[in-house]
This record gives sequence, C-alpha cells and structure tokens, in this order.
Amino acid sequence: METGPGAAGVFITFEGIDGSGKSTQARRLHDSLTSQGRDAILTREPGGSPGAERIRRLLVEGAAEDWSPISELLLFNAARRDHLERLIRPSLSRGAVVVSDRFADSTRVYQGAARADLRALADRLHADVIGLEPDLTFIIDADPGTALSRGLARNNAEDRFEGLGLAFQERLREGFLELAAGAPERCMVVDGNRPEDEIAADIAAHVARHLG
Amino acid sequence: METGPGAAGVFITFEGIDGSGKSTQARRLHDSLTSQGRDAILTREPGGSPGAERIRRLLVEGAAEDWSPISELLLFNAARRDHLERLIRPSLSRGAVVVSDRFADSTRVYQGAARADLRALADRLHADVIGLEPDLTFIIDADPGTALSRGLARNNAEDRFEGLGLAFQERLREGFLELAAGAPERCMVVDGNRPEDEIAADIAAHVARHLG
Repeated sequence: METGPGAAGVFITFEGIDGSGKSTQARRLHDSLTSQGRDAILTREPGGSPGAERIRRLLVEGAAEDWSPISELLLFNAARRDHLERLIRPSLSRGAVVVSDRFADSTRVYQGAARADLRALADRLHADVIGLEPDLTFIIDADPGTALSRGLARNNAEDRFEGLGLAFQERLREGFLELAAGAPERCMVVDGNRPEDEIAADIAAHVARHLG
Repeated sequence: METGPGAAGVFITFEGIDGSGKSTQARRLHDSLTSQGRDAILTREPGGSPGAERIRRLLVEGAAEDWSPISELLLFNAARRDHLERLIRPSLSRGAVVVSDRFADSTRVYQGAARADLRALADRLHADVIGLEPDLTFIIDADPGTALSRGLARNNAEDRFEGLGLAFQERLREGFLELAAGAPERCMVVDGNRPEDEIAADIAAHVARHLG
C-alpha cells in the first residue's frame, strides 16, 4: 500500500550470502556515483533508519533461534516499513540513487531456506506493507565455502546465520540464483569469485547503462 | 495459523482505556483464582514474554509518533506472536487460566481510533499470525475524564496515549463498546465507575460461572 508512481530516483539493491562481498560492492558503487556528482545514498537492511536500526538490534543480538520464525518475519517487515517511509521513499522522491545492502530478497531467500512453509506469508506481508521492488538488484554469487570462511574470519557477532554451516549457505546460494532466474528484468547475477576491482567495474558499467 | 483445538485452559483478557482500572482488576482476578488453588498466570500486552517485553520497550519508549502506524502495527503483532508461542499457548495447553491485561482488542480499538484506514490490515494480520480469541473479555468501562486524570496522576511514561487528550480517550471508549457489541459471546462490559471491590466481586462471580 501507499506505493505507485512518483519515485523519480533509482533503487539499487545488493544481495547474496554473508561473506560474498556484497557490502563492499554496495559501498564501491555508492562511492563511484557520488564521485561522479550524483545524489546517492548508501543504506542497509535490516536497519537504515533510526527506528529500523533499533529493530535490527533485536534481530541480530542473540542466537538465530531467539525469535519464533513468524515473530522474526514481522520484525523484518516492521524495520523495512520504517526504512521505506523514513529514508528510501523520501530519497527516491527527490531523485536520488538509493543503494541498499540487502532488501526484501534477503527475507525471501533466508525464509525460504529456513522455513519454506512461511514463504506465502512472507509474500502476503510484502505485498501488504512494502510493495516496492528495486529497479536493479545485483546478486553477488560467491562460492559458499569461501564466503563462509571470510565471514567466520570477520568474527562479526551479527553474522548469526554462519553458525548454521555450509549446507545452509549452499541452500541460500541456490535460493538467490532461483530468485534471480524468476525476476530477470531487475536481477543481475555477478560472479563474486573474481578480484574486487573487476566486479566493481562490471557493476559500475551496468549501472551507467541503466542511468543512461 | 497453528491455532485450533487442544487448548484445555481458559483465556481471559481485560480491556479498556488507560486509567480504567483494568490492570487492578486483572491482578485481583488472578489473585482470587490462585487463592482458590487454580493454576492461573497473570500477563500483559504489549509484552508478557522476554522477546515481547523487548519489543514493548521499542513501542513505549519515546513519543506515540516515533513509529509509522504500519511499523507499529507490525511490532504489536510480532510481540503478540512471541507472547502467544512462548507463554499463552503453552499455559493453555497445560490447562491453566491465562489472565492478560490487554490483548488483540486493544490493537483493534487503538488502531481504529488513530488510523481507521488500517483496520482491514490489522484484521488480516491478526488472522494470519495470531488467530486466537479469548474465551472471556472484560471491558472495564470508565468515564474517560476520570480515567485520564487517574492516568495522568500516575505519571507513567508508558501511557503515551494520554497526551492525545480527552477527545481521543472518548473515541477509544466508544471503540471498546462497539467491539463488545460485536462480540457478545465473549465480551462483558463492566461498569468501572464503582468501588474496586464491587467490580472485582462481579468479575469473580462471572468467571466462577464460566469455569463451572
């Protein structure tokens, strides 16, 4: 609800498993756009607005099993709605390029990998309270084993899904690839097993074509 | 979802405007039941389970306008789902009487008074993620002016709706009365403008008849 035309800007999201390099690439695209003089903002999910960051702390502090799957899904949507109303829509309305490290696709894929029976509920919630899809989504496709090692080396307390192991990372990777295949008009799968500069150059070129 | 038979206990809720005396009456009923040797628990919303209490803090700290109405509705439902899964259902399953100070009716009435356009979304969310109604609901109907004075005298930082004034309290009172009229099989309107002991005796008698 409350969606529709009027968004003059461009909404670009980065998706992929933890350790895939997506946060680095989101930052590099943002830096490249601003260095060209574009009005661009870099944000992330869960979080991105003061209220959503408070909800993020509830989600990432503690173990993955602290919340029931349905409560967790509602918390993600509450945070996303706040992020949407307070940051994404106002930025798009003024014509900015909004670059977000994760958005609704992460919920779809993580939910699908963890509790496939909740996918229909996740879709209804998205339609009811979010209703916005990105203009472009880069799915950074990295080897799950390499990504997991990187993530574990980072030792970030927020990467709570890493504890679920390699098989789970592989299910997530499959989920992102399936999602990309189902939405080719906005999703571009990027080979993340390459040097960072090469990946960044590919993404910048694709965005430049899109921005015309 | 995940509702249905199997709940051997009895679920009793207290509803009404802040300052109506509902929390006092919920506590008195709980004390009366336990003094009779009944397995009874006293709980409240928002909150009632560790996760839901963390969400409660997000909801009650700060001003009423801190959250967008839709984010707030999602947070209330996330808290309620946690409360339901972690406390209410397990307690009912073992045959306990669960006495809750507020439940879903508060969301319906506050939402209706503040943002009537969200009532349909509130109803869909309730059906999707909660799906449980109380066996008995006592609506403590107090004079809005008296209730507001009581609430303000308490000077409780959590009573953030009091700042919205008497006209809003009157809309809430009307909302609770309409809700009771629409669900007479479970709702009992109790005149809250009487001595506390008299109200407690009425409620205890009604519950005793229900418990047989």
